[in-house]
This record gives sequence, structure tokens and C-alpha cells, in this order.
Amino acid sequence: MDLLSIKDPSFLKKLSNNELEQLSAEIRKFLIEKLSVSGGHIGPNLGVVELTIALHKIFDSPNDKFLWDVGHQSYVHKILTGRACEFDTIRQYQGLCGFPKRNESEHDVWETGHSSTSLSAAMGMAIARDLKGTKDHIVPIIGDGALTGGMALEALNHIGHEQKDMIIILNDNEMSIAPNVGALHNVLGKLRTAGKYQWVKDELEYILKKIPAVGGKLAATAERVKDSLKYMLVSGIFFEELGITYLGPVDGHNYDDLFENLQYAKKTKGPVLLHVITKKGKGYQPAETDKIGTWHGTGPYKIETGDFVKGETAGPAWSSLVSETVRRMAREDDRIVAITPAMPVGSKLEGFASEFPDRMFDVGIAEQHATTVAAGLATQDMKPFLAIYSTFLQRAYDQVVHDICRQNLNVFIGIDRSGLVGADGETHQGVFDIAFMRHLPNMVIMMPKDENEGQHLVYTALKYNEGPIALRYPRGNGIGVKMDDELKEIPIGTWEVIREGTDAVILTFGTTIEMAMQAAESLAEKDISVRVVNARFIKPLDDAMLSQIFIEKLPVLTIEEAVLQGGFGSAVLEFAQEQGYSDAVIDRMGIPDRFIEHGSVSKLMNEIGLTAAHAEERILSISKAKEKRV
Amino acid sequence: MDLLSIKDPSFLKKLSNNELEQLSAEIRKFLIEKLSVSGGHIGPNLGVVELTIALHKIFDSPNDKFLWDVGHQSYVHKILTGRACEFDTIRQYQGLCGFPKRNESEHDVWETGHSSTSLSAAMGMAIARDLKGTKDHIVPIIGDGALTGGMALEALNHIGHEQKDMIIILNDNEMSIAPNVGALHNVLGKLRTAGKYQWVKDELEYILKKIPAVGGKLAATAERVKDSLKYMLVSGIFFEELGITYLGPVDGHNYDDLFENLQYAKKTKGPVLLHVITKKGKGYQPAETDKIGTWHGTGPYKIETGDFVKGETAGPAWSSLVSETVRRMAREDDRIVAITPAMPVGSKLEGFASEFPDRMFDVGIAEQHATTVAAGLATQDMKPFLAIYSTFLQRAYDQVVHDICRQNLNVFIGIDRSGLVGADGETHQGVFDIAFMRHLPNMVIMMPKDENEGQHLVYTALKYNEGPIALRYPRGNGIGVKMDDELKEIPIGTWEVIREGTDAVILTFGTTIEMAMQAAESLAEKDISVRVVNARFIKPLDDAMLSQIFIEKLPVLTIEEAVLQGGFGSAVLEFAQEQGYSDAVIDRMGIPDRFIEHGSVSKLMNEIGLTAAHAEERILSISKAKEKRV
Repeated sequence: MDLLSIKDPSFLKKLSNNELEQLSAEIRKFLIEKLSVSGGHIGPNLGVVELTIALHKIFDSPNDKFLWDVGHQSYVHKILTGRACEFDTIRQYQGLCGFPKRNESEHDVWETGHSSTSLSAAMGMAIARDLKGTKDHIVPIIGDGALTGGMALEALNHIGHEQKDMIIILNDNEMSIAPNVGALHNVLGKLRTAGKYQWVKDELEYILKKIPAVGGKLAATAERVKDSLKYMLVSGIFFEELGITYLGPVDGHNYDDLFENLQYAKKTKGPVLLHVITKKGKGYQPAETDKIGTWHGTGPYKIETGDFVKGETAGPAWSSLVSETVRRMAREDDRIVAITPAMPVGSKLEGFASEFPDRMFDVGIAEQHATTVAAGLATQDMKPFLAIYSTFLQRAYDQVVHDICRQNLNVFIGIDRSGLVGADGETHQGVFDIAFMRHLPNMVIMMPKDENEGQHLVYTALKYNEGPIALRYPRGNGIGVKMDDELKEIPIGTWEVIREGTDAVILTFGTTIEMAMQAAESLAEKDISVRVVNARFIKPLDDAMLSQIFIEKLPVLTIEEAVLQGGFGSAVLEFAQEQGYSDAVIDRMGIPDRFIEHGSVSKLMNEIGLTAAHAEERILSISKAKEKRV
Repeated sequence: MDLLSIKDPSFLKKLSNNELEQLSAEIRKFLIEKLSVSGGHIGPNLGVVELTIALHKIFDSPNDKFLWDVGHQSYVHKILTGRACEFDTIRQYQGLCGFPKRNESEHDVWETGHSSTSLSAAMGMAIARDLKGTKDHIVPIIGDGALTGGMALEALNHIGHEQKDMIIILNDNEMSIAPNVGALHNVLGKLRTAGKYQWVKDELEYILKKIPAVGGKLAATAERVKDSLKYMLVSGIFFEELGITYLGPVDGHNYDDLFENLQYAKKTKGPVLLHVITKKGKGYQPAETDKIGTWHGTGPYKIETGDFVKGETAGPAWSSLVSETVRRMAREDDRIVAITPAMPVGSKLEGFASEFPDRMFDVGIAEQHATTVAAGLATQDMKPFLAIYSTFLQRAYDQVVHDICRQNLNVFIGIDRSGLVGADGETHQGVFDIAFMRHLPNMVIMMPKDENEGQHLVYTALKYNEGPIALRYPRGNGIGVKMDDELKEIPIGTWEVIREGTDAVILTFGTTIEMAMQAAESLAEKDISVRVVNARFIKPLDDAMLSQIFIEKLPVLTIEEAVLQGGFGSAVLEFAQEQGYSDAVIDRMGIPDRFIEHGSVSKLMNEIGLTAAHAEERILSISKAKEKRV
């Protein structure tokens, strides 16, 4: 059938299983083709083709409500709800979002991006439904990885307590982003271990039939089946003891099984958890055989070979630069321990992990725990490196405040994906971290101008012994500078003049240095001499240099790829006020007070006016303002 | 024995059970007496007298490490580690802290205040220990309430996975602060239900003996015992399936039982959870019979009667004012639903709960879940009121950003205990919320000048339909103003001049208005005419009024009982810069860049210079600066 002609999922009701199988194949082909060009979350979506179709056949969206946890697995849902025709624009500026988006469709009732929120939101919707007296079904779909996030566990506890009708779909693909870790995963995994990647439907049926007879007879059953039964019994008990009816496991690629179980779940009172086993990447061999999460989310690739289309990159990936420098230092300092919340691949910690398996901890999707583990390590004079994306660090704000900063512990936080991240959009932009960390006592925040300075700042962070220290680094790659062989410490709170100038000063750091330099060069042609300062310490500021600038009465422009309110520019305003430079002329460029959608970083920067041209205009404007006042 | 003479816990090793019983009685008497004067967490500490003594007898602190989750139950530990002599100063300025404090004693290895952090920290310490190859025992002590916090569950998942040696003490007193909620609690509670508040040791022994024989024989056992066994079996399975050896339950007031189980736990490899049943408030009748949490933490009381010594209060408690106004509005608007994370008493939601039991949800210690439940409700056109303490809202920062603000949902957040809270100290001061919320798109933040305006702002918040809106209110009571009968809306983003003046302006809100008025009155005597503005909207600012002030070229002093960096004063600086008021003279008073310890609020305010006298000085100073420039 023509996927582009789908308007809503109602057509599914009339399709036979054979027709549904055909539809599944077409959707897979469509996804593999489209995403080979656009990139996107191919693995998760190929895994939920049948599950999504089955959900839309058995339930009536949008009256019944699907909540896609994390949300990167919602592409099939988007296709079935009339958005196939927009797929060429997915993850592009003003195009289809890679996550559920309420303004895209009435079928997207809950927006996601960060993990483990769906059960709590579902609880809110179920409360609302019962107060209103309507009868719709609330159906959160959550992966086994997301289930280990603390708020999902908080939600399970409350859901079991309240006993409101709700159908939780546990999409168990045995991986979250990287392979899953954690004891809960071990519980969930016992059955899969028996039939890893070779699901035998017959065996499953056999086991399912045995369940009612569970008891002393278990011991007599063959080893493999026993393990499976034990798993089901046990995982059932785990959820059932929380007051949640456990159904499954069911083969997530078999329509009959899915329909039967979903229908049963639909009739069951109170909260139900249906355990669905799916295969991430199913139907596309390179993704299906991926063991480490490479095919979780990708850029463009060649369909035939599964080779990734490499963009041109000048320098090393930032994540790699940082993690490999930590690894290098770990050879000399055995107190260094690395911690990641489920991002060993994204944070490029594979090398560290293979060299120091005892000193690397992937704690699963559990940012809060990861952060306080680091704090615990630091109390014992260890040097923890906590690698965490800016956007996900939001979830550990309290742990950074209460456990790390308040106890002034030597934790090195690598804030990966700082600044705009592009295609993932609103939920993933790393633009708040300066504003939510700058006000924390004891915290040092840095951002390097290039990868060479990056390695020195990693060195500096791991040599620093006076409290927490954080290094921001962007998504993507360095600019390809020459790397020093020797690592060196950069004095805390020191900035660097990278271009001399006598008429105005730009204070900036990291990714926006390039635009500052461009603006300065362009202004030089107009006989305006602009000094550019690499403000690599966002906190503490370089008080001496900043004072000198104000004493020279130079107008100052701050530029940051981060929110303006409470950001670096505000720190400069605060400094000028506190130090009594009441005639200081300061202007600030940064991210305005709204959420920034998806799109290429360059388009987004252009749209919000973070460009060299704007910087030039601003310098012209404040230079004039300066003249007027002098 | 003389508690004041205790230097360290080594003396316990030689004491007989009889002597220990006597010691327990003395400690209880000491606590009841001391806290009747100082106030403090009487209930939790009376409950852990034997447990704490047993821990210090069996283990060797500080080599073995106790991590007191939440930490308000660490008083007995403080007595046994040589701090009884300082108890007259507890929770007072520069006195003994009410929570573990690393600079107080080498026996305090981990500082707490917020809930559910101990397991993660213990994991960090266990990793450090194993890398160093030492053999110390890591012993987190966590309550059943704190166990429902998401990060504790994240930690259990990881602890079970890693299998490092660790002895988790589950201090199950069937209450967290208020009575516990949640399915996990129901699991834990089954045995207690049978013998609620009347623990029969003989029965427990009988049951414990039966355990190895568990199986088909269960059915034959008497109903009560069966329930107990089922509970133990089941709760054991819950933890054991996570890879954690479950021991217990054990009577937490019986030394023999405690010693036996702790010794056994000490010898067990891998992670162990010892389930200890204690009675909150044990040994002091008013606290022991408390059903709702009144005796969790108290002010001074009369020992004989258990009557609380009431301080003089002019107006209603702020929590009460807000919750009761929400209740009043809920009579007219059935979309209003109240949510609290384990603070129904603290947030004074009992009245709401009794009138609208179907519209009130206590979700347990689970701030993240609470926040996203509110978001889920708002997607369904309900009007959720999320009552949460400022300091605990830190834990839901990501949910406020990602779920509420990003989706621009109509959630009313009541930020209780905003500003300095006093005796609870560093971990509980509500001083970061402006800095961590002001930069969030779509967020409105308000603080009322008095309880009458408070009720109108509650009304305003619940009538507001354009996104999230937060109301800050302090710990303690209103000032006793006359209350309007009719509730009214206050236009968003409007300030109010509460004192006219022509020489300078103070912009402030909430608790610091009084000091501004005092400063203004005092300055009036010096012929300086100070305008005082009630800046009740912290975001958005009153742009029109602020522009007018700058156009009048009046020097401005901002005052806030919140951190200066990124705070309200910074918003004023940002506004002046953005609007081009480059000759604006602005000064800011607020909380400096360090954590503020415990002590009375007035002492703390004095120490950090948040006083009318300082405000007066500052105004004099900026008025002069102004003169110089004109």
C-alpha cells in the first residue's frame, strides 16, 4: 500500500494478518530508505513495527492515549498517523520532529525525549480520566532500559498503589541505547539468555501454557524451560507484588500473540504490564546484529553495506578527545574512575573500558545515581570522571547541588553535547547547563577553545583538588588543531586574549570563538580593532582581566551558545555591577527565552541571531554607544 | 553512664546487654529532654536507639562507614561519637548540625539532608574500597520511605548488578515523614499490618524458624503467620531477584536479634539488605502513638504532656494559607487536583485531602514522579497544584524543564519553604529556586508580600491558562494582615509601589519587603526619599514600571532572600542592559556564593548582611554614586 496516503490509523482495523505482515515489510523498507538519507533512530523503530501496528489496531488513538517513552521509537506511529509524507524532512529545520510532538498530531498526546517520564505522565492522565469519568485507555510504551530510570520506578510504585486502569507496554529489546546494565535487567533478561536473538515461538507457547501449573513441578522441567519459567514467575512476582498485573512475555513480532495479549490487557482491571520481546533493528541485518548500540541512532548510511556515510571532520570527536585524555591520565593515576549513565558509546568510553574494566561503570539510565556514585567515590579520595550529556545532567541537578557541590567533592563532570545539538531538537539542546550550574557554590565551569586546549583542561580538571570541576564540550568534532604532546595545567580562572584589539572586546568561549574571530576580522577592515578573549573559565571569571577591560573602558560583547538568562553574559553584568564599573558598556548574545527546535546547528544559530554578522552589528552598536557617552 | 563523657563508640564493645538496655534508656531520656528545648527530629531518633548502638558495637566506625540516609536520624550516632556535650547547641547557629556533617566528626563520612542518596554514595565508596583493596564495611541505613525515591531504586538496580560487599540496613518504621504510600510500601507493610504497633517477638521467632521449610506447608499455618511468611518470602524475592541477599525482618529494638543478624550480614558476601523493624518515637508516648507524622520533626514541647510550645504567630502558616486557598477554589473548579511528594502534613494539605479525597495524591518521596504526574494531568485540561518545598524541587529540575515548561503546561507549583529555612541548614535552604527556574522559558514565578496578596496570587495562578506558574512562599507564618473576602486576579507581570519615593528605589519581594520598608523609613529621617516596590513577579518583570524607574534615573537596589548569581537582581541587570539603560545605577543584595549553614533565620540574615541596616548603607552608597555621575 501507499504509506504516503495514510491519513489515520483507522484503516488497520480491516486488514488481515497477511496484509499487516505486508504493511510491516513496507514500513521497514520505507524506514530503511528514508533514514539512510536523513539519519535517525533506525534500530528502535525497526524493532517496534508490529507492536505499533498492533497497538493502533487494538486501541483507538487519539481517544486511547499512547505515551512513547523517550520517544525516538515513534516513527512507525508517525507513519500510521498520517505523517509518512513528511518523512523527507524528519529531524530537519521546520520538518518532522524525531520525537512525539503535540503540535504535529492529535495522536501525539505526550512529548518525550528524555527517558522514563511516560509512566508518571500516564498516571496523571489516568487520574484525569477517572475524575472526568471517561473510559479511554492509557498506554505508556516503555523500554527495558528506560524502566531503570528512577522516576519510572517511582511511578511503578505509585501506579501499583493507586490501582488505576493503565496498560504498560514493556518493550524489552534487551538494550537501552547501549546494552543494558543493572540487576533489574538481569531479572528481565533471564528468559532472553536462553533464546538470545533466536526467539523460538513454539517454546514460548509451551511455556505460556505451563504457567498456571507453576509450583513444585518446576524441578522436573528441562533446564532451559525451567529458567524461562522461573524468569516469568519471578519477573511476574516483581511487578505483581507492586500491584501490577503481569502479562507475557509475548513475541513482539507476532501479530496473533500481540492481539491476544493486548485484548486481554484491555479487559483487565487495574494496572497491567505487558512484557513484549522485540528485536532492535529487526529486518535490517546490520542493525539487527548490532551488539553495542551503533545502530541506535545514526547519521546517513549506505543501505547495501550498512556503511556509515562519513561527513568531513577536521579534528577528533569531542567525546573521544575527552575520554581518551582521561584514559591517558588514568595510566598514571589509579584513582581515576569513569562513570556513564548508559552512554559508553556516545561518550566514547569504550577505550577506557577495555583498558580499565575495573575502573569503568556504566550504571544504566540513572543520572542521579551516577552523579552520587561519583560523589561517594570522591569522599574516598578517588578521582571520578562523570561523563554525561548536558541535557541529561538536568536530571541530576539536585545531586550536583546537594551531594557534590555542598560537600565540595573532587568530581570531574564532563558535560558532553553542550550547546545546540541540532537534529534531536528541543529535548536535547544542551543550553541550560551554565544557567543551572553557575549559581552553585564551589563549582568550576570550563569550556575549551579547541581540542588541544580541551586536553589540557581535562588534565587541569583531573589535577584539581579543591572541589567539583566541569568541562563543557560540544557535540561533533574538533577543528583539527595541532595537539601538544605534553599535557599541562591551565590556571583556574584564567582567560586568554586570542586577538588583540583596542576598540572593543568580545568575551566568548568554545564553539562561538570562531564567529567572534570572523566578526573581529571583518571589523578590522572597517578600522575597528576588536580584542577577542577566550573566556575558557565560565566560573570563576578572570577577575583581573575583566577588571582591566573595564578600566580601559572598552565596550564588551559576550557571546555564548547557551541561554542568556542567568548565563555567562549575566555573570559579566554581575561582575561589573559588584565591582562598581557603573559606566561599563556591555552587550550579550546568546539563546533567547524559548525552547529551540530541531534543525541543523547552523540554521538554528542563524535563526536565533548567533552569527558573526550579528556580532559585528552589535560591536558597531556598542562602540557607538560608547562614543556617545564619552 | 554519663553520656557527656563519651568520646567514641569503642566503649560499647565491652557492655553487656543489660548495660546496653540501660544506655538506651539514658539516651532516650537525654533526647526527650534536649529536644523538648531545642526541637528536632525526635520521632526518627527515638526509633533507632538500639539499632544505632548495635551498629556501633558490631562495626568499627569510622573504618567501617555508616551512611545515614536523609540524616535526621543521626542524633544517637552523634551521641555515641562524642557529641552529646554539644547537644544544647543542636540546630542552632554555629552549633551541632541536625544532620551528618563531615567537619563535625570523622564518624560522619557522608552528609545528607535530602532523601535516598545513601545507596548511591555507598556504591561509590564500595567501588573505591575494592579498588584500594581495603576491607571496610559500607553500611547505608535507609528508611522504607526513602527507599521509594527514584535514585535509591536506581542504586538498588546497580548494587545488585555489581555484587560488591555492602550491608544495607532497611530501617522500616512504616512511615517516612507522613505515613508511607506506594506499592513498595504495601509489599513491605504486609507483616507489619499483622502486628501493627504491637510487635510480638515470640511470633517473629516462630516465623523465622519456619522459613527454611517454606513451600507447600504454608497453607496450613495460621492466617496471621501465613501473611507474615508470605510477606517475608515475597519481599525477600523482591530484593533477592535484584541480586541482593535479604535478611530479616528483625526486631530493631532487640539487641540479641540485631547482633545475630548484623554478624551474619557482616560475614555474607555481596550486597545484603537487613530488614529492621523499628518503632518511630519509641519510648516517648506522644511520639510513639503519632499516626500522621506530627512528631517527625518538632519545635520545643512540654515533656509531660507532649504539648508543643507555641511561638507567637501573627498570621496563618504560609503552607496553610496556600493549601486552604487552593481548597477553597477547588470547590468551584473540579479540575483542581493537589499533589504532594510525602508532605501532606508539612504542606498543610490535610484539609484539602479530607474534603477532596479523590483529588489529592500523596505519591511518596518521589519529587520527579510528582512533577510529571502534574504535567500529565495538565495535558488533560486539569489544574494540578504541585506543593513542593523549594529545596526538594531541585530534584525535579529536569521534569520542570522537560515535561512542564517545554510543553508549556498549566501546572501550578507551590514552592513552599522558599528562602532560608533556618535550623535544618545547608541541605534545606530554599535559596536556589529563582536561579534554577528563572531561565526556563514559559515559567512565571511569583512571591507575595503578605498572606492577603498570597491568597490572590493563588487565585491568579489557578486562573492562569497560559503555562506553568510558580508561587514561592516562605517557611513560617504570615504577618497577620486583614484578609479580603473576595479573591481577585493580579495581572501577570505587575509590580506594586508600596511606598512612594523620589531619590532611590528598592525592588524586592516576599520576606525582604519588611527590611526594605525599615530602611526606607530610616532613610526618610535623613531626607532621602526611597520608593519601595513589591516586585511580586520575579518572572516576568514589570517591564513598564522598571523602564519608568530607569527613565527617572533613580538608583535601584534589589533585595532577595535567594542566591545572587542568576537571581532576581541579575534579571534587573539583564533588563537594564537589554533595554539600553546603560547609565542605570543598580546594586543587589542577596545570598552570596556559598552554602548557608543552620541557625535561626535572623542570625543567618545578619551574618550574610541581609538586613535593613545594610540596605540603608547600600542606598546611601548608590545615591552618592548617582550624584557623582549626574
